[in-house]
Order: sequence, then C-alpha cells, then structure tokens
Amino acid sequence: MSKQPIEFYFDFSSPFAYIGSELIEAAAERQGVDIKWRPFLIGAAFKAVGSKPLLHAPLKGDYSKRDMERTARKHGIPFILPDVMSLKTVPASRAVYWAEVNAPDKLPALVHAVFRHAFAEDKDYSDPETVADLAAGVGIDPDAVLAGMQDQAIKDRLRDEVERGLERGVFGTPMFFHGDEPFWGVDHLPDLERWIETGGW
Amino acid sequence: MSKQPIEFYFDFSSPFAYIGSELIEAAAERQGVDIKWRPFLIGAAFKAVGSKPLLHAPLKGDYSKRDMERTARKHGIPFILPDVMSLKTVPASRAVYWAEVNAPDKLPALVHAVFRHAFAEDKDYSDPETVADLAAGVGIDPDAVLAGMQDQAIKDRLRDEVERGLERGVFGTPMFFHGDEPFWGVDHLPDLERWIETGGW
Repeated sequence: MSKQPIEFYFDFSSPFAYIGSELIEAAAERQGVDIKWRPFLIGAAFKAVGSKPLLHAPLKGDYSKRDMERTARKHGIPFILPDVMSLKTVPASRAVYWAEVNAPDKLPALVHAVFRHAFAEDKDYSDPETVADLAAGVGIDPDAVLAGMQDQAIKDRLRDEVERGLERGVFGTPMFFHGDEPFWGVDHLPDLERWIETGGW
Repeated sequence: MSKQPIEFYFDFSSPFAYIGSELIEAAAERQGVDIKWRPFLIGAAFKAVGSKPLLHAPLKGDYSKRDMERTARKHGIPFILPDVMSLKTVPASRAVYWAEVNAPDKLPALVHAVFRHAFAEDKDYSDPETVADLAAGVGIDPDAVLAGMQDQAIKDRLRDEVERGLERGVFGTPMFFHGDEPFWGVDHLPDLERWIETGGW
C-alpha cells in the first residue's frame, strides 16, 4: 500500500454518504490503497455555501430521493430514508475519531453500524448511549467510547477536521480525495478509481 | 428504433449540457434509440428552485469548474469556460425548435454548432444573426431561421417546452428522460444506458 490513501469525507446524515460507505472499501481494495475515514458536519458546509439540505429543495429534492433509491437498488444496498433532519451526528462522529486512535481495526465496522442503524433499520443514533451500544456491537468497550465522546481532545479533533474539510472545499458528502484531487458524490467513484489507477489525466 | 427515445433537456449556457451534447448521440446509437432535443431555459428552473448558477456558489463553484475541465479531458472534448452569464440562450433555443419542424436532419448539427461556438471557441451566440450564421454553416437557410426565431408559434413552443420541463421536474441540465425516468447530469449517462438496456431496476 504505497499509494496515497483515499480520504473519505462523510456526514452521518447524508444518504449518499451512506451508499458511498458501502462501496468505498471494495474500491480501495481494487486500487490497493488505504482509507482515511473523515466524519464531517455538513451543517458547517451549508452555512459556508448558503445551501440547503438536498431533500428540501423544490424539484431537486424529489429527484434526489428517487436517485438515492435507484442507486441503492443498483448496488443491492438496503436503503430506507430516515428523517435525516432529526439525526444528530456529532456523538457518532466523535466516536469515530476516538476509534481512530483507540480501536483503529474496528473503525470501519463502527462507521457501518452507525450508518446502517439509520439507513437500513430506520433507527436514530443521535443519543451517545445508542452510539456506545453500536460500538459495543462491533467489539468496542462502550464505556471507553462514551467517555471518549466527552473528551475535549476528541471534540477538538472533530472541529479541526471539519474546518480542514471546509478549507479543502468540502461542500457536500460523500467527498473523496486522492492527494489534492476531490471527487464529489457516489457517481464519481469510477472516476476516483480511474484517477488512482492512471495517475490522473 | 422501436424503443422509447431519449429526451435530452439542455440549456445552451450549461457547461455540463455541452459535454452531454457531445456524448449523447453515441449513447443513443449504442442503445438503438432516437433523441428528442429539448432546449430549456435554466433561469426558469433557478427561479422555481430558488437556486443559483453553479459556478457562483461558494466552494461548489470551484469544484464544479475543476470537474467540468476534468470531465471534458476524460472524454477528449475541447472545453473553454466562457462567461456563461453573458450568454443569451433564447434565440438559439428557438432556432432549434424551428429546425425540428423545418430542417430536422440538420438539427443535431445546429445544436453542436451553437454549443461549440461558446464552449470550444469562446464566442458569443447571443445575437440572432450569429445563430443564423451558425445555422447557415450546417446547411440551413439563414433568412428562414431568422424569421423562424421571430415566429410566435416558435416562441410559444419554447415557452411550452420549458413549462413542460418544469412540470416533469427539470431543475438543472443536462437532464435525460427515458419514458418518465429522469437522469440528471453527464455522470448519469452510464445509468441511463443501463436503464434502457435492462428495462430498469
């Protein structure tokens, strides 16, 4: 794995980021690269860009819902659209940055457990206790991760990563970087792979 | 050609619609379907959706410019980004609906001539006389098309097609329909083809 990793920016309430999370590992494996998982807070980007949640946009919202369902079906990924506006993503995002240091081999499973809780089972992960339960389900000590979510260093880490993402131009998720090259959206995964494979064009 | 045609909605000032116009005929040929060319006025959609031109959005604008150039390079399509805000698309759009009735075999060449004038040559097609010159270049009688652009029936046709597009949910271009199934963006062309090939999923 000498090639640069894929940095994967995702907001836990983004339906397309969920779909991306189900596809990224196979893509990284095909290209022989690692993944840096980067939980992101899309609200910060909406504020910076002056945009609104996709599903609330007239015309575009209806299309997007259809496209999410169609894309999930295409890849055989279970998909339920939860009320994304009610989901609080900060606790789960902090838990992932905590796991990066304290349980790195379980991090991908934690990401999947959180995403699938909402988008495959239509359940809410907003509560830190729920996140800790989901962490326990993938072999992480729930008390340790619960304390981690309250750790000031972890809180700072999430804030810093969101700021860094905004500085790099993350305006929506999923966004994938290979080096400095950004690819936005699940539809760009084939381009990301081709870019890694060919060194760019 | 018994299968339903592709309806291709495009705004003449949309960079991605230009790229789509360079790719759609090969896609239609592979799938054995016709194309219905549907010039559209994106300003009407911006008004309906409350959105802004892509290139003017913070963060997203920079990414989009990079993505346009990258997408054009990928397909080997010449691409210059003109000042799209200065382009007036009504005369050229009317000319295409006129050609649909009066010079149908020359319509695709007219679309290409208009798009390439701006996006390959960085020239302005806003003036009806310029559109007539471009039409002459593809074998259309310039005086006839110039009169056609002033024909009330043609003016009504464009207005009606824009309204119909909005009713069908066209919020951006390029948008492709196969039957009632919409596909937005150049990145969705592979999905559009797969949909036609398989009958949908």
